[in-house]
Amino acid sequence: MSTTPSSTNHQIRLAARPSGLPKPSDWELVEEPIPTPGEGEFAVAVSHLSLDPAMRGWMNAGASYIDPVEVGDVMRAAGVGRVIASEHPGFPVEAYVYGNFGIQEYALSNGKGALLIDPTIAPLPTYLGTLGMTGMTAYFGLLDVGAMKEGDTVVVSGAAGAVGSVVGQIAKIKGAGRVVGIAGGAEKCRWLVEELGFDAAIDYKAEDVRLALRTAAPARIDVYFDNVGGEILDAALTRLARGARIVICGAVSQYNATEGVRGPANYLSLLVSRASMTGMVVFDFAPRFRQAATEIAGWIADGSLISREDIVEGGVTAFPETLLKLFAGENIGKLVLKV
Amino acid sequence: MSTTPSSTNHQIRLAARPSGLPKPSDWELVEEPIPTPGEGEFAVAVSHLSLDPAMRGWMNAGASYIDPVEVGDVMRAAGVGRVIASEHPGFPVEAYVYGNFGIQEYALSNGKGALLIDPTIAPLPTYLGTLGMTGMTAYFGLLDVGAMKEGDTVVVSGAAGAVGSVVGQIAKIKGAGRVVGIAGGAEKCRWLVEELGFDAAIDYKAEDVRLALRTAAPARIDVYFDNVGGEILDAALTRLARGARIVICGAVSQYNATEGVRGPANYLSLLVSRASMTGMVVFDFAPRFRQAATEIAGWIADGSLISREDIVEGGVTAFPETLLKLFAGENIGKLVLKV
Repeated sequence: MSTTPSSTNHQIRLAARPSGLPKPSDWELVEEPIPTPGEGEFAVAVSHLSLDPAMRGWMNAGASYIDPVEVGDVMRAAGVGRVIASEHPGFPVEAYVYGNFGIQEYALSNGKGALLIDPTIAPLPTYLGTLGMTGMTAYFGLLDVGAMKEGDTVVVSGAAGAVGSVVGQIAKIKGAGRVVGIAGGAEKCRWLVEELGFDAAIDYKAEDVRLALRTAAPARIDVYFDNVGGEILDAALTRLARGARIVICGAVSQYNATEGVRGPANYLSLLVSRASMTGMVVFDFAPRFRQAATEIAGWIADGSLISREDIVEGGVTAFPETLLKLFAGENIGKLVLKV
Repeated sequence: MSTTPSSTNHQIRLAARPSGLPKPSDWELVEEPIPTPGEGEFAVAVSHLSLDPAMRGWMNAGASYIDPVEVGDVMRAAGVGRVIASEHPGFPVEAYVYGNFGIQEYALSNGKGALLIDPTIAPLPTYLGTLGMTGMTAYFGLLDVGAMKEGDTVVVSGAAGAVGSVVGQIAKIKGAGRVVGIAGGAEKCRWLVEELGFDAAIDYKAEDVRLALRTAAPARIDVYFDNVGGEILDAALTRLARGARIVICGAVSQYNATEGVRGPANYLSLLVSRASMTGMVVFDFAPRFRQAATEIAGWIADGSLISREDIVEGGVTAFPETLLKLFAGENIGKLVLKV
């Protein structure tokens, strides 16, 4: 094994379970020695970390689709980086690797859930976004769970976010009749239409989404891909086409609710429209990730899909404040923290 | 054509659109001459009328899965009766017939939506319930929309009602591993378990449904057939098995809400459980009604399915108060008004 280039590993650990938006006191900055791999392990110098709305859910106690992060543990996060020391034959020193490395500068891995990646195909941060879990979520959520067909009207909320921006673009590539994004702010909406090729965008901060959908989705909605929940989900429920499919991918508007989640009051539209609402967890599609990533990489290469990352400098100490950008809707594209 | 046996036709017409529970003043009792069929028509002496929770929705203005009943119109209702005069070759005098006859003693029909029925196979009221739309709703909702498989745990709300009582029985017949009914009151719960063969029943008036489901559905819920909405839907959402299917058939707890429908606050369980929630309208399955009715008639004949009707005497003038029994949960089985 090689020697390591610096002396300490800064980590962000969960200090307390938050109520509402995570506060600075919910986190603890810890310094540890850089880890040394044992037999079958390797150490990574993490270069970029993935910041996701789902992180908020991992901070809560209780059963969910994944175990919670325990108080005192390094905050869970996907990351990319380079192997600096290895006792694992599959991950040699200097290899680039994706894995569940956590919010820290150096991570130890036994290879489980880790993947070799190739920075000549796409920049490293893209492996956290469009070629990573957010791209997979968009791909399988739209095409499998949402069962999008050619000619469908597809509406996506959180459309300028990591998942939403890819959902809309894949919908266009796969022949959707009309793609509408819902996002917060004129700049995001402009980007969706002018750069990503969405047919229309609704600025939920400036428009009544329910009214705007009448114009933006004149033939009603066949697939509604929901990342936000709350009022926007309720608005979409009023515009369903017969047999519509709603994909419940997330509910970023609700993750920090302190007085309970707001349920979709218009859910009886499911009955009127013979529609379905289905929850998804991307990990279920793991056996097909490679195939999807290959297809997406092709679209990136030929220019039909734009992958945008919002890369924040500042290292792991900037994590607590950077995470809040997601809940304030400040990022465009995939939010990535540069270590 | 034959002559008619009595002289006037009492009808119940919608006088005003209700807010909340329908009041007596929302109805008007009207006397009209007994109708005389023209070419291609027949007249029916209605013997029994179907009372359904969905009627409350038909009284509201606005688009739904079916046009609203207009103020001034005879209230829409399915009924059965006997042809008393006919200019229609398919529906001769003295034939027994099912149709959309409305809340009135005599109805005119052009045959559209009408069916000849055979009182030697089952009593006339059964054609309004288990062999009628409620039976069809149970059958297709459970087996098609809910995609029930052998061994599944099936939970149904409104379980002692017209649809729910049939859902649970069909589930048992089709090999469900466990069938749990949720109903209001000890008498209903006793009936479900002791007479209909449900594995367990939860009395939502006496028990915490969420807690009770832990015991009653130890392997969690594969199919939840919802007739009620509200708190019970939210409780069921906490107990979903991976890949569960929720059938949204109705929401009787919400139909008279004056302050807006309560949305299911626990809907994000759909995500955690990779579950779906799908709305259904029975009319979509019309091409297969005959096949389903034949199968159900066989189960009634061999004693494996009990069809229970709650028949209220009193004629059409008793309709306004009888309808309220549905929203008070006073009926067991199919609520039928004898004309």
